[in-house]
Amino acid sequence: MKTWKTALIGFGTVGQGLAEILLAKQKELKAKEGFGLKVTAISDFKLGSVLRPAGIDLKKAIDLVKKGGSLNDYPGGTKGLDALQTIAKTDADIMVELAYTDIKTGEPATSHVKAALKKGMHVATTNKGPVALFLPELQALAKRKKVQFLFEGTVMSGTPTLSFVRRNLAGCTVSAVAGILNGTTNYMLTEMEKGMAYDDVLAKAQQLGYAEAVPDADVKGWDALAKVVILSNYVLGANVKPDDISCRGITKITPDMIKKAAAEGKRYKLIGRAELKNGKLKASVKPVALPLDDPLAGVGGATNAITFETDLMGPVTVVGAGAGRVETGFSVLADLLEIHRSCA
Amino acid sequence: MKTWKTALIGFGTVGQGLAEILLAKQKELKAKEGFGLKVTAISDFKLGSVLRPAGIDLKKAIDLVKKGGSLNDYPGGTKGLDALQTIAKTDADIMVELAYTDIKTGEPATSHVKAALKKGMHVATTNKGPVALFLPELQALAKRKKVQFLFEGTVMSGTPTLSFVRRNLAGCTVSAVAGILNGTTNYMLTEMEKGMAYDDVLAKAQQLGYAEAVPDADVKGWDALAKVVILSNYVLGANVKPDDISCRGITKITPDMIKKAAAEGKRYKLIGRAELKNGKLKASVKPVALPLDDPLAGVGGATNAITFETDLMGPVTVVGAGAGRVETGFSVLADLLEIHRSCA
Repeated sequence: MKTWKTALIGFGTVGQGLAEILLAKQKELKAKEGFGLKVTAISDFKLGSVLRPAGIDLKKAIDLVKKGGSLNDYPGGTKGLDALQTIAKTDADIMVELAYTDIKTGEPATSHVKAALKKGMHVATTNKGPVALFLPELQALAKRKKVQFLFEGTVMSGTPTLSFVRRNLAGCTVSAVAGILNGTTNYMLTEMEKGMAYDDVLAKAQQLGYAEAVPDADVKGWDALAKVVILSNYVLGANVKPDDISCRGITKITPDMIKKAAAEGKRYKLIGRAELKNGKLKASVKPVALPLDDPLAGVGGATNAITFETDLMGPVTVVGAGAGRVETGFSVLADLLEIHRSCA
Repeated sequence: MKTWKTALIGFGTVGQGLAEILLAKQKELKAKEGFGLKVTAISDFKLGSVLRPAGIDLKKAIDLVKKGGSLNDYPGGTKGLDALQTIAKTDADIMVELAYTDIKTGEPATSHVKAALKKGMHVATTNKGPVALFLPELQALAKRKKVQFLFEGTVMSGTPTLSFVRRNLAGCTVSAVAGILNGTTNYMLTEMEKGMAYDDVLAKAQQLGYAEAVPDADVKGWDALAKVVILSNYVLGANVKPDDISCRGITKITPDMIKKAAAEGKRYKLIGRAELKNGKLKASVKPVALPLDDPLAGVGGATNAITFETDLMGPVTVVGAGAGRVETGFSVLADLLEIHRSCA
């Protein structure tokens, strides 16, 4: 049994989702995994901050912010520290990074990750920014400090992807990855198959909360692109940036194209793909008309999936949720358990 | 870096496949995982045996049996020991059990597993017999002896299944599993969709080596049944035997039934399913006409797949090979690496 002191940087949707999972699973995780966790600091850009080495009651913290209050009103502890001040002052073993990120600069998440790693803390994050932009540098820093830097939730939320390659496929060589890496566009393509036009489907996706008011990150393929970069660098050992990879979204897909593909026994999917050929990376994000017997062709709605091409096992595919509050919260728990198992 | 002394009980298709993988991956496994392996004993019912604490050259052993020779002709070491004698005399840390098994009695594999566990050896096996019939007893024995008892290859060969639940889904509660757990029957159903009759498809499957001359284990659902028992007991914590579960194969499926299902947007699959409802297990093997948007409906040919229903992630599906020499060999490597990581 080991109890991990943990600092949460960011206490929005995913942070609160994680806190709820930790509360619900506390006893079971202690009994089954010998895993204990004590949150000793929370700092959120909007919701205030509290640093309390004796431990923060997560139930109290959630209740506080759900009622529209601030963590600055938490009874006891040091208040008003920003993310970097919190990381500097905390005695936590692990920093969980769930703050916002500008996908162009990777900030402020990257600075948080660097500060924590430099201090010798393990880091788990769901932020694509730092990983898509600075993975080799951050991995080297973690290695130098002999700590773990994990980011399971950056690809398919809690659906096992990076851990799947690292643990389950260890011993195999992965030569290519191809996946449906964006739930919003997969939902839209699935609806368009039923005959709806692009604009109508987009409006519906926005109404359901799947797509943002400015939907570019999804429909132009940028979200999938960041994930292809992460997979290229982490799984295939490349060293590419988002600008190195060609990216085309679904904005030009028409009902006619979908009908024509269907007549040929095919189905359009937005596919993120990366492949090593003679040591050279070939990667792209683009709509592809897949034959119906491709395992990815049958993945409908907001579900995500990824196929790994391996030397010993041939293709292996994982299908599951690619987003969601609880699902992304679980990805952090998976990283925490990985740190626990590797280091306890 | 740790070098594991290992005894191979059984050196047929899977044993030789494993040996080839170990030879090919030796350097990489040392560098990446700090994992070394030295085979110090091999005993095969048909191919003879050699016990050599200084180590057996796997290349020599493979060449010997591929030329029709016997392990008794291996230069050096003790010869002529049967499986149980080998287990008794070896100083190996791990016993890999790949002998044959009578699915009714679980023998002789179960006796091999018990003898090795009692001696304090870790055990990795691909044999369904001992696991389907005696899992609770063997797990208790392994626990008492503080060793690992692993059997990844018993469900979908090397496609991560049991390790997926144990490692990747740790923290989730799995309430149900449903899968395509037999490649032969899935191949046959896929071919029947193209219009072939049952008998013709069976003859073709036999010609291709997918189905045995006596195809009952596949077509009557017994192979899938053994896997449902393993999943019920290992994943859902039940304690059932094959006789406790209703089992219907594909022998009564006709082209007409398949056509009728297709007209309704459905597709027949032989589904092994186990579910916990109010603490009670409900399990079966039977043909099910799945709606086409079910992730299992799109799995064609000899491919296998399994969907786990979880509390935090909803359904998560893994799709991959369910059989094969190299694929099953890889399942043993996965178990060996798990032992290495847990105990090194």
